[in-house]
Amino acid sequence: MSKQSSTDYPVHDLITKRWSPYSFDDRPVSESDLRSLFEAARWAASSYNEQPWSYIVATKENPEEFERLLSCLVEGNQVWAKAAPVLALGIATLKFARNNKPNRVAVHDLGLAAGNLCLEATARGLMVHQMVGILPDKAREIYELPEDSEAVTGLAIGYVGNPDSLPDTLKERDRAARQRKPLGEFVFGGKWGTTSGLVRRVP
Amino acid sequence: MSKQSSTDYPVHDLITKRWSPYSFDDRPVSESDLRSLFEAARWAASSYNEQPWSYIVATKENPEEFERLLSCLVEGNQVWAKAAPVLALGIATLKFARNNKPNRVAVHDLGLAAGNLCLEATARGLMVHQMVGILPDKAREIYELPEDSEAVTGLAIGYVGNPDSLPDTLKERDRAARQRKPLGEFVFGGKWGTTSGLVRRVP
Repeated sequence: MSKQSSTDYPVHDLITKRWSPYSFDDRPVSESDLRSLFEAARWAASSYNEQPWSYIVATKENPEEFERLLSCLVEGNQVWAKAAPVLALGIATLKFARNNKPNRVAVHDLGLAAGNLCLEATARGLMVHQMVGILPDKAREIYELPEDSEAVTGLAIGYVGNPDSLPDTLKERDRAARQRKPLGEFVFGGKWGTTSGLVRRVP
Repeated sequence: MSKQSSTDYPVHDLITKRWSPYSFDDRPVSESDLRSLFEAARWAASSYNEQPWSYIVATKENPEEFERLLSCLVEGNQVWAKAAPVLALGIATLKFARNNKPNRVAVHDLGLAAGNLCLEATARGLMVHQMVGILPDKAREIYELPEDSEAVTGLAIGYVGNPDSLPDTLKERDRAARQRKPLGEFVFGGKWGTTSGLVRRVP
């Protein structure tokens, strides 16, 4: 199953091919693929090159660790994410290591790392479904996260599966076309809310 | 000039080729390239598909708008960013449009959009230097940002230039190799600080 996005302007196919499936196949992800996914995250840009991202990873090959990680997701996400062969938590360290001052873009830079991870996954035929529906306090307790670090996202990683195995509401979501706001609603020039001349022109 | 990163595991060349130059060439960026950059940002994942990102963009073709945007950067960034043909502000809307509740990953998702934008730029031979050193209050005033939206990052976009034109400290930064923490320092298993077995194995 694929869900190529229908873009208004041409973009690289690693962007049009990426989506967030609820259905995952039970095919495992190779360790070398996983290493390359985190290697990709590693090379993201970050403010002062702080690299404020960390990950806790669990694969189904270790069922006990997988269950522990699964338990850090909200129930609505456990329903489908339990089928993914790999789960991870994306963690941001909110203060700079060198001076203990707040890093106001730590969570932004975790997003940049996640973007790289997704790019690499897509290039390898894998998909990543990121979740905000996690239990950060539980993650903190289970994994003994330090005070300044916080679990921000969950990530389910694997090969796209057959949506038929999903509950009806999720099945529909996997089958629906990807939707986005038009460019004119978020690319501004001169003033907030005024569409930039760049994107006002006809495609 | 290119700064291919030296990776421990193989990753897509759009990741190894990307870096954050201080030197920009005065060659303008075509409007169609810019449209594709923002189109790429458009297709990022976001929590509840909120798409909490917006951009204010200014190109040198409109010197007045360019100067206004430049004035929203801290002085240390103005020094080099003034040479870039395109500047932008990355803005996050911190509450969900549909229920006005806080979106705790708005800034993360702005990072995902930026990741896509950088990927598309790299694919087109362009580079993006993102900055945390901006003046969010000034940006709010100049561009009349609504209360719930905040300028988080600056982006300088263009073709890599010759670092010889830069002040010495920046020249050195442009010439230095890209450095990152090893994977073992941020990919954990079982517990924070314990390197995951996945990345403990020899490359």
